[in-house]
Amino acid sequence: MSLIQPRTLKGFRDYLPAVMMPREQMMQTARDTFRSFGFAPIDTPVLEYLEILSGKGSDETDRQIYRFQDNGGRDVGMRFDLTVPLARFAAQHIGTLGTPFKRYHIAPVWRGENPQAGRYREFVQCDFDTIGTLSVLADIEAVAVINQLLEAIGFDRFTISVNNRTILTGLLDQFGLADKSVPVLRSLDKLTKIGREKTHEEMCRVAEIDAAQADAVLALAQCDGDAESVLAQLPEITSGNPIAAEGIQRLTEIYRGALASGVPARRLKLDVSIARGLDYYTGVIFETTLDDLPEIGSVCSGGRYDNLAGLYTKQHLPGIGASLGLDRLLAAMEQLKLLPEASTPAPLLITNFDHSHRDDYLQMAAHLRAAGIGVEVYPDTKKLGAQLKYADRRGFTAVIVAGGNEWDENRCQLKTLATKETTDVAYTHQDPAALVAAIQSVLSASATSPGSRSAAADGSPAGS
Amino acid sequence: MSLIQPRTLKGFRDYLPAVMMPREQMMQTARDTFRSFGFAPIDTPVLEYLEILSGKGSDETDRQIYRFQDNGGRDVGMRFDLTVPLARFAAQHIGTLGTPFKRYHIAPVWRGENPQAGRYREFVQCDFDTIGTLSVLADIEAVAVINQLLEAIGFDRFTISVNNRTILTGLLDQFGLADKSVPVLRSLDKLTKIGREKTHEEMCRVAEIDAAQADAVLALAQCDGDAESVLAQLPEITSGNPIAAEGIQRLTEIYRGALASGVPARRLKLDVSIARGLDYYTGVIFETTLDDLPEIGSVCSGGRYDNLAGLYTKQHLPGIGASLGLDRLLAAMEQLKLLPEASTPAPLLITNFDHSHRDDYLQMAAHLRAAGIGVEVYPDTKKLGAQLKYADRRGFTAVIVAGGNEWDENRCQLKTLATKETTDVAYTHQDPAALVAAIQSVLSASATSPGSRSAAADGSPAGS
Repeated sequence: MSLIQPRTLKGFRDYLPAVMMPREQMMQTARDTFRSFGFAPIDTPVLEYLEILSGKGSDETDRQIYRFQDNGGRDVGMRFDLTVPLARFAAQHIGTLGTPFKRYHIAPVWRGENPQAGRYREFVQCDFDTIGTLSVLADIEAVAVINQLLEAIGFDRFTISVNNRTILTGLLDQFGLADKSVPVLRSLDKLTKIGREKTHEEMCRVAEIDAAQADAVLALAQCDGDAESVLAQLPEITSGNPIAAEGIQRLTEIYRGALASGVPARRLKLDVSIARGLDYYTGVIFETTLDDLPEIGSVCSGGRYDNLAGLYTKQHLPGIGASLGLDRLLAAMEQLKLLPEASTPAPLLITNFDHSHRDDYLQMAAHLRAAGIGVEVYPDTKKLGAQLKYADRRGFTAVIVAGGNEWDENRCQLKTLATKETTDVAYTHQDPAALVAAIQSVLSASATSPGSRSAAADGSPAGS
Repeated sequence: MSLIQPRTLKGFRDYLPAVMMPREQMMQTARDTFRSFGFAPIDTPVLEYLEILSGKGSDETDRQIYRFQDNGGRDVGMRFDLTVPLARFAAQHIGTLGTPFKRYHIAPVWRGENPQAGRYREFVQCDFDTIGTLSVLADIEAVAVINQLLEAIGFDRFTISVNNRTILTGLLDQFGLADKSVPVLRSLDKLTKIGREKTHEEMCRVAEIDAAQADAVLALAQCDGDAESVLAQLPEITSGNPIAAEGIQRLTEIYRGALASGVPARRLKLDVSIARGLDYYTGVIFETTLDDLPEIGSVCSGGRYDNLAGLYTKQHLPGIGASLGLDRLLAAMEQLKLLPEASTPAPLLITNFDHSHRDDYLQMAAHLRAAGIGVEVYPDTKKLGAQLKYADRRGFTAVIVAGGNEWDENRCQLKTLATKETTDVAYTHQDPAALVAAIQSVLSASATSPGSRSAAADGSPAGS
């Protein structure tokens, strides 16, 4: 029989343990954070009716949907984001769920776009949203969640940029240019790339506004400084326009509320230039950048939208939410050397080189697990050297060696792999306490050693 | 614009928070258990080349694969289990990974079969496997994992049935009937359904063995009693056949090793009649039934297989693994009333009915979260009655009420929803300790009250 070549499709990838472990940990951190704010998990099918998925998408997303006819002749597609399914879900179940409805959803999505470096056809989205309330409290809370989430993942130096799109809307309204908001935003979006002068030129040419108006738009977009000073400048730049004033008021409340929620002022930036796409968001918008890697772009973005489920129900469902860029963050952590290198989730290996003591190894492992220590027992009685090589390669923190002599003498050897230290520890099945204590001390020393977010930290079993 | 009817495809389902929360908790329990034994997570793409998926499947699974041509004209399919992707993955990466390779994989799979009650076209599989070792230690460990997993999920009364298929193989070999093993097993598989007599008759007729041989096969399959007594009877029933003797030896080691690993004897049953499909497994096999709901069938099954990746590589990769029946277990827990009813992952709601104190509510929430208490703040300043109704409906354990008077007097009201008790607790932002203690006491009382595996237990944030 000829072999089938084992391979993955272009744009898709396997996750090996060393890569999957930090991914899984980040997803768990996200879940824990969302839950601590009262966001509840939901899940929706990967396949949906194609008309549901393509209902409101742009031509571009429509083209990217993996679509086919199922066995029943239905036109179906694989979800390309988690927002369209949320909209369908909310329209279908909001009567049961009631509002406010706070959900998170961590799940893969698929886009048949041309894969590039760092872009894949299958990737995980990690979203949280509050549906059914216009309260600014929900906006503030979104900032607090982003702050808490990045902190819990392990970042300290990051910036959450906040804007309220209605401020620009107010400025344009003041000039009688409310209908120009899309081309103006489109030009403004290029500001960091093409610079002030070219943006000004393009705004006048493409959006057909005059030079003074373009000056005012740019003055607003480039309004800089700490949050208090930005808030002080905005009323004058927007000439007291009432729509802008309301937007400034909301932005002020978000800033003050975020501080009250414990977000440090140094992480908050009021940035009236961010636009985040043109159509979707209608109010506050967020972008989050890592201070040490700003070039990778936003790692958590979102905002407020007017009407989530308008395609599927007449019920008006406003919402506010954001999405964590899991892949981008993991790539950043790799670049910043924040990821552990271990590919074992258990920090301890019990070596196995005496056949007649197999059940002793198993019993010892059970005692250690009961004490909250993750333990692997090497399955075969190979030479110790081969087992230690395996331990090094997998990234175990410590190994236990116990042969006939040790078992006869009610002791075992505990080897710490990083320091090559070996100590003799008393052990009997009746009294594993000394061994448990010795291992815990080795694991906690390893967890606190510099540069080591090691297996010990995320390798202990439930409840640790 | 006409509305699109929000609906899911036949055989697919949405998970609302009340259902998703225990699902997520069970998946997390599985991860924690697998990790504590040194199994590491992997993930593979949902889409694979069709030739990879249909390589070894039966006609039936082949028919059920969701398949299509992607934009690049490739024949692709959605995975229908996690074993074929594991085989492809192992063939592709085992050189990098090395053996023994221990992995778990919790992920959805798709089968376009006709949906029936309790069967869906999309469901989650939850597998763990050890690849690349023939050691009986890995077999024993699989039993220990199953025991630990069901205990961690919350079950006490369950039975892990263990068999080693080579014992029957040995018996048939003794009769010179080694080539009859498939039809004999096929008949034997019906034993519980059609009874001894009809099975005997069918075995003679279909498998063409004689009555004495059928008697011996049935004596083996019906060999009953506690494990020690089964192990004592087997050598005589198999007439000392050396293949059977080796199988009995391995079964004995698995039994003794499982006891050493802390699996209670009352949960272990040596059952020589279980076959678990005809082709795949080659050695030890497991099935797990709930003592209080045996009729739902096995909730965790698996076994040892000879050659996992033979379609994709010449490297011989034996394996041992099992699969937790997540959906079946959740259905069982619902039936046994073991599931909480809450649809909030945070146990505490801070009501919000005084606009001017919004930032105080937010600051209080931040303090409580920092103390490890999951907190939701009601976003709108609705009437207290409406907010309490929301709290009841969502299943919060307790709510905090603080209006102008309370804030002026540095206190708040803590209401326990189950008991309708309200207490006044001192609170300032500078010193939240009294409130933290009062809430923790309410939450722990609620977590230990009968029948309540409540939000408090699984609602606290990370690290609790």
